[in-house]
Amino acid sequence: MPPQPIPVITVFERSPDRGKGLARDMRVRWALEEAGQAYEVRLVSFSAMKEPAHRALHPFGQIPTYEEGALTLFESGAIVFHIAEHHAGLLPDDANARARAITWMFAALNTIEPPILDLQTTRFQEADKAWYKQRLPIVEDRIRDRLRELSDRLGNADWLDGAFSAGDLMMVSVLLRLKASGLLGEYPNLSAYVARGEARPAYKRAFDAQLAVFTGNPPTG
Amino acid sequence: MPPQPIPVITVFERSPDRGKGLARDMRVRWALEEAGQAYEVRLVSFSAMKEPAHRALHPFGQIPTYEEGALTLFESGAIVFHIAEHHAGLLPDDANARARAITWMFAALNTIEPPILDLQTTRFQEADKAWYKQRLPIVEDRIRDRLRELSDRLGNADWLDGAFSAGDLMMVSVLLRLKASGLLGEYPNLSAYVARGEARPAYKRAFDAQLAVFTGNPPTG
Repeated sequence: MPPQPIPVITVFERSPDRGKGLARDMRVRWALEEAGQAYEVRLVSFSAMKEPAHRALHPFGQIPTYEEGALTLFESGAIVFHIAEHHAGLLPDDANARARAITWMFAALNTIEPPILDLQTTRFQEADKAWYKQRLPIVEDRIRDRLRELSDRLGNADWLDGAFSAGDLMMVSVLLRLKASGLLGEYPNLSAYVARGEARPAYKRAFDAQLAVFTGNPPTG
Repeated sequence: MPPQPIPVITVFERSPDRGKGLARDMRVRWALEEAGQAYEVRLVSFSAMKEPAHRALHPFGQIPTYEEGALTLFESGAIVFHIAEHHAGLLPDDANARARAITWMFAALNTIEPPILDLQTTRFQEADKAWYKQRLPIVEDRIRDRLRELSDRLGNADWLDGAFSAGDLMMVSVLLRLKASGLLGEYPNLSAYVARGEARPAYKRAFDAQLAVFTGNPPTG
């Protein structure tokens, strides 16, 4: 076999969360670290993201993108799935368990994340509106409905379906966006679940790498 | 090989869209029809959806679910992907084209659908609020931003990346939710794209089958 090309991902030149690890490249970095796959990073400015050259890679003008030889992907869910499919450790070998792990990836992105995105959008784009204070609790309650259901399903298990999988990687990544809101703290088993994700060595390596882009200090060792 | 079990999906006993084909079981029905896979349907009432027996299948108390022998799945994205992986016709054979088709599935569900969901939630849950009329155009403009980018990428192609795939099935299904809003009509190539999806024989069979549940008249022939 020819040597595999080193994948290249795009990340914010200057992360709007100031290195808190909430940008979507973090999900891809984490998956690459779990898989033990080296990668390279290309920084993209906010203005360059909206230019034709970047839009050729990502039609919605966002990060991350993923380039591996002749293949270009966008959408963190699709990139994490691609990594999980081609490396050991992120999807179970058993066919049914694998299908269930993929189900949790989709649940994270299409059931749990949309109300969380709405909270974020509301905060960033509607904070100056007259309705902001009245509408915020409505948006938060929609998130609580989902968190309660997720908490009930997780129970006292470590991960959503047996061993850690790409489904957990995606779910933890989505839930992390709630950290500053305090909502996660209302569900102790979900808080502990997210903490288990953050405690994984691969998560820490990914986190340090994205923080280093922001601080300009590459991680040591 | 032992005979494959006939999959069973759950659908609304009485669809809130009155058979317009916008409930998420339609995506799964369409994929099964494209794959030529027979299936059975179990009707679930709104109250039964929230009971423990259904939540054991679907932690968020929704439809559709998918049961195939010992395997139970939820999330229409995951179910469609499972069908696409195990039947010909919904994912390309070429590995890179396959990864790109999967990317469009995730883009439909995590980039295009969230602002569309927000519009739907706004209409259903905030129509009686003082801010409704002022906020609605803001929500619609967020959708327009995405539609413009999607329209630019599609250009004058028939499908998003070569031949019709599960990525198109999911994108068309998501865009169909906009039909009543008039927003889709602002982007003629997207309207034509959705019409191409609706014109597929498999789509029509799936649509007729879900409508028959609502009208109580099973499709003939």
